[in-house]
Amino acid sequence: MSLPRQNTDANETHGGDPQTVRVADKIRPLLATAGGALLESLKNASNSLAISVMTPPYGAVFCHPESHIEVDECGAPGFFTGGAKLIHMDDENGLCTPAGFDAAWNHLGKSVHQVQPGAVSLTQTSEAGTLYNLETIRTIADAAHDRGLHVHMDGARFANATAALDCTAADMSWKAGVDVLSFGASKNGCFAAEAVVFFNRDLAKTFEFHRKRGGHLFSKMRFISAQLDAYLDNDLWLDNARHANAMAKRLADGLPGIPGATFRFPVDTNLMFLELPEQALDGLEADGFQFYRMADSKGPFIRLVTAFNTDPTDVDAFIASASRHAGAA
Amino acid sequence: MSLPRQNTDANETHGGDPQTVRVADKIRPLLATAGGALLESLKNASNSLAISVMTPPYGAVFCHPESHIEVDECGAPGFFTGGAKLIHMDDENGLCTPAGFDAAWNHLGKSVHQVQPGAVSLTQTSEAGTLYNLETIRTIADAAHDRGLHVHMDGARFANATAALDCTAADMSWKAGVDVLSFGASKNGCFAAEAVVFFNRDLAKTFEFHRKRGGHLFSKMRFISAQLDAYLDNDLWLDNARHANAMAKRLADGLPGIPGATFRFPVDTNLMFLELPEQALDGLEADGFQFYRMADSKGPFIRLVTAFNTDPTDVDAFIASASRHAGAA
Amino acid sequence: MSLPRQNTDANETHGGDPQTVRVADKIRPLLATAGGALLESLKNASNSLAISVMTPPYGAVFCHPESHIEVDECGAPGFFTGGAKLIHMDDENGLCTPAGFDAAWNHLGKSVHQVQPGAVSLTQTSEAGTLYNLETIRTIADAAHDRGLHVHMDGARFANATAALDCTAADMSWKAGVDVLSFGASKNGCFAAEAVVFFNRDLAKTFEFHRKRGGHLFSKMRFISAQLDAYLDNDLWLDNARHANAMAKRLADGLPGIPGATFRFPVDTNLMFLELPEQALDGLEADGFQFYRMADSKGPFIRLVTAFNTDPTDVDAFIASASRHAGAA
Amino acid sequence: MSLPRQNTDANETHGGDPQTVRVADKIRPLLATAGGALLESLKNASNSLAISVMTPPYGAVFCHPESHIEVDECGAPGFFTGGAKLIHMDDENGLCTPAGFDAAWNHLGKSVHQVQPGAVSLTQTSEAGTLYNLETIRTIADAAHDRGLHVHMDGARFANATAALDCTAADMSWKAGVDVLSFGASKNGCFAAEAVVFFNRDLAKTFEFHRKRGGHLFSKMRFISAQLDAYLDNDLWLDNARHANAMAKRLADGLPGIPGATFRFPVDTNLMFLELPEQALDGLEADGFQFYRMADSKGPFIRLVTAFNTDPTDVDAFIASASRHAGAA
Repeated sequence: MSLPRQNTDANETHGGDPQTVRVADKIRPLLATAGGALLESLKNASNSLAISVMTPPYGAVFCHPESHIEVDECGAPGFFTGGAKLIHMDDENGLCTPAGFDAAWNHLGKSVHQVQPGAVSLTQTSEAGTLYNLETIRTIADAAHDRGLHVHMDGARFANATAALDCTAADMSWKAGVDVLSFGASKNGCFAAEAVVFFNRDLAKTFEFHRKRGGHLFSKMRFISAQLDAYLDNDLWLDNARHANAMAKRLADGLPGIPGATFRFPVDTNLMFLELPEQALDGLEADGFQFYRMADSKGPFIRLVTAFNTDPTDVDAFIASASRHAGAA
Repeated sequence: MSLPRQNTDANETHGGDPQTVRVADKIRPLLATAGGALLESLKNASNSLAISVMTPPYGAVFCHPESHIEVDECGAPGFFTGGAKLIHMDDENGLCTPAGFDAAWNHLGKSVHQVQPGAVSLTQTSEAGTLYNLETIRTIADAAHDRGLHVHMDGARFANATAALDCTAADMSWKAGVDVLSFGASKNGCFAAEAVVFFNRDLAKTFEFHRKRGGHLFSKMRFISAQLDAYLDNDLWLDNARHANAMAKRLADGLPGIPGATFRFPVDTNLMFLELPEQALDGLEADGFQFYRMADSKGPFIRLVTAFNTDPTDVDAFIASASRHAGAA
Repeated sequence: MSLPRQNTDANETHGGDPQTVRVADKIRPLLATAGGALLESLKNASNSLAISVMTPPYGAVFCHPESHIEVDECGAPGFFTGGAKLIHMDDENGLCTPAGFDAAWNHLGKSVHQVQPGAVSLTQTSEAGTLYNLETIRTIADAAHDRGLHVHMDGARFANATAALDCTAADMSWKAGVDVLSFGASKNGCFAAEAVVFFNRDLAKTFEFHRKRGGHLFSKMRFISAQLDAYLDNDLWLDNARHANAMAKRLADGLPGIPGATFRFPVDTNLMFLELPEQALDGLEADGFQFYRMADSKGPFIRLVTAFNTDPTDVDAFIASASRHAGAA
Repeated sequence: MSLPRQNTDANETHGGDPQTVRVADKIRPLLATAGGALLESLKNASNSLAISVMTPPYGAVFCHPESHIEVDECGAPGFFTGGAKLIHMDDENGLCTPAGFDAAWNHLGKSVHQVQPGAVSLTQTSEAGTLYNLETIRTIADAAHDRGLHVHMDGARFANATAALDCTAADMSWKAGVDVLSFGASKNGCFAAEAVVFFNRDLAKTFEFHRKRGGHLFSKMRFISAQLDAYLDNDLWLDNARHANAMAKRLADGLPGIPGATFRFPVDTNLMFLELPEQALDGLEADGFQFYRMADSKGPFIRLVTAFNTDPTDVDAFIASASRHAGAA
């Protein structure tokens, strides 16, 4: 029963609510696509769902060997696509290169015995925290389209990249050749809120069915949309990202004087991989800081992420602690 | 970077947070399974995910022809299981019967040419708003186990059923032979919050991987768990359900005097299918009430759901409006 | 190394061999589609593979409740389509009816919550041995196309039907609205030889990839094609079917005089379901005849199939044996 | 109807025929597993089907980057497993190494976010025509088992390897730690005949259902089994392989004197990759020889395969032709 003043069976709203409509109305001008973009709001699995409409089940999806779809989704792309293969492209600084794409493409056989063209997926900001410049995105996207592939952008940290490059959202997506964008907000202040934006409208046609059967069409979608509604207002999404980036820069600026402190990759945004002497790591932990310790053939390092709500005094305290303990060596 | 006072990269928590731990700690005693139950909290797709660990991809899942998994999930069970078949059981009043199960089972061939035993899925409260008594659940569950099938309960309206039968959650689940329960909360006050409870621990072993690759493992899971945490406190879940059931009873008690008002099924909980004369329906809409109009060979009817937040004065207004317009006939 | 006089690495031929080309060249005129039909020759799984290009993974395939795809393929359609649902249509004499299709279609919800239009699959000759007339096929096919569904014909016994209806292969397929035909030969003299014929060329575009990744693209395809090559010559396929049909008629004509002998369905082709008194069945077995004994609520019956190589004297011996043992009752 | 002297509905035999039973009876002693091995005979897709019972759908299958399952099956492993990932191991001479396996294993994350342990697949003879020695197989298999992985051997050229290593079939399979063997015969004289042999019987339990729903359970299986029946008699399979290997050796022995003739890999069996000067390749083609021309960064080369039926005079003619044209440079 649905009474006049309220919808008591709220489970029956699946996106037609005012909040969700408002999000779509805001994201289109943001992306400068006057009516040309379709928005599908969802909370999770946005990469795999996006890719599921960009490749046949017997398709090839070219990606970075450390991309989230490759290493952090427990095989979700294979599940959502019905078996498509992810194919690695060589990289520099955590970024796929046009040459790496060419090599991977050329290595793939072109007969019925091999997987067929599906998509290229680029992660901006990359998993190394580094950034594609617009020209590289365009070069790879053009080559992809020439080869019959669609172009996906994993934008889990899209806001940080847009802020860092000081470009528009349109510049970094459809103007650079991106067909489908996973516009992430969960790492920048929201809960379970992401939007999949289709610049190639043909690809959007079946998306809603993939989303529904994947269990990602929400009843009470408005609780997701309400977040995005606020997130997109008054450049909040960019302000959050700018703050996170600034905190990373503050950290990066403060650390070089410390003996043994080395960043693995350029600090382009808010995600860093830092080498520090063992005693500095121990000291930081003793001072109450928490982080993942990692190691590879070059030695130990840690992963640091600054966020929309990182306090500069905490950053300074981190630098001071690291400095003190490193100097003690 | 994770600073002492806060986890700024909150995306890195996937269930180890205090809220989620607390939910598990509360649901176990609720179900009277001292350490014997495993809880997996998630938000959506709980039926399909539960079933995905209960059947092989070439399996048979016996269910009601109008069950949610059959008609309302855009084929999600086929997706999550990798192709398992749903097989219908005949029913009475929206409820599967032991005889209907026997017939469906016997009709299924038993060679390599046919799908193999997977699960039986019962919906309590049923899609007709009716209730299985405990004995029927037990009878079907026993037969299922004898046949090598697991038993799933779609408990989207589990709270309403528990309240209506005035039994314990344990009585209606594992004590009646249920192996895996989808414990729904989204239709009873929560947003995107459901728990899958495994009474058969072997079945739980691979669940977390199915959940993760389906995109249903949340970062910031605590926002889901916080709801369930409160939901399970002080019988809030039952109080909500009792209220919804009471409002349905209020409606059911008030309508019989109205000419032409007939319920399609017994009003056991908070979900009703009501026949009313055309002019009563028109009048209700003119008075601002909203509802789905449906029709079958027996004529038109509407679907009504009362909720945890239904106001009794709204119910009375509905009855008065229906009565007035029906009487005008 | 491939030497001049022979292809020593015969595994490298996958359909480009002369035999396979010849089959395609023969089947096109047979179906009176001057260049308009695409042929894909394969050996098995032809129904599921055909359907896999006719429905999305979240699609609905309407079929008979006793169709081969429903009951005899261990869930293959769900596997090959990635999860599509088979939806039953009511029947008469083992044949789907236009009214049954209408009812099933109307019962299926039409929102994002339900599976979406995929295909209708008709089996000609049906699993009951009965035949669709051309008008019924056309009526159902027209309704299917109006509803956005493709039309598949499971023609495992296509030859028997063509022979029995005394029509052309074109009449019974594309002229009646069929988009994709599984042209079976394995039940009519061949080994593992079937052809999938596409009258809707768009549907054929991705077939070869589905076939390959399903493991159904043969190296040494010529051993399959060589059979079809001969099968299509000089009406051999029809002659085989006519013989099988004639043997069934001989049996059907000889049995009515026997007390208790009743056919469950009209004997339209070469597949029969026969009720006989228990002592007749026992006697037949004692005389060395073998058959499947089946039973349903109406009592016991057996399944009989005559074939391209059935000897009329064996048929007569069967009748005589049945008659003698039935009479002894 | 099944008459005394013949089975006219031959489609109803699916492996219970005498030929198939005989194959199983022969392959067990061949593999020296007195009753311990289960045989499943099939024709194609044996690798993907074998792997489908060795990994969960969210699993990792470690393999060579140029293995058949990786590059030549149009994504079949992803299809049959429901989405499992193939993960590359580094190699030497076309062979995976224990160190490469260690590196790939260590690189794979070990949380719920990553694919989970499934299988290792080794190809013996490798796609480069080279051979694993028994110790390397054992080392990798032991490490796999320690890590919770099953071990698969793609034995498309198992006969050539067994002949070349002069060991027993048991030595090279279960005695070296192989759990499931794809025993190929199609590249050594048969048509569409392969056997999947399970040394780990637990893995065999669900194989028949995967095979059936994949469309790989044959009616008239006897036509496949009859080939294997003969193939296994009197060491025919080894004789065929020995001949092919000998022809390769004849070629390898004859070519080194030719200027510019270089084999890319050791010629261990019957598969070779040969560099020859351009004018030699042109001359060979002018003389009527056929081969695939390939090229990589090191220059052009061709792929040569000798077979069970290669005529030594053809080999000599090839050498003479190559020599004449190369010398003309």
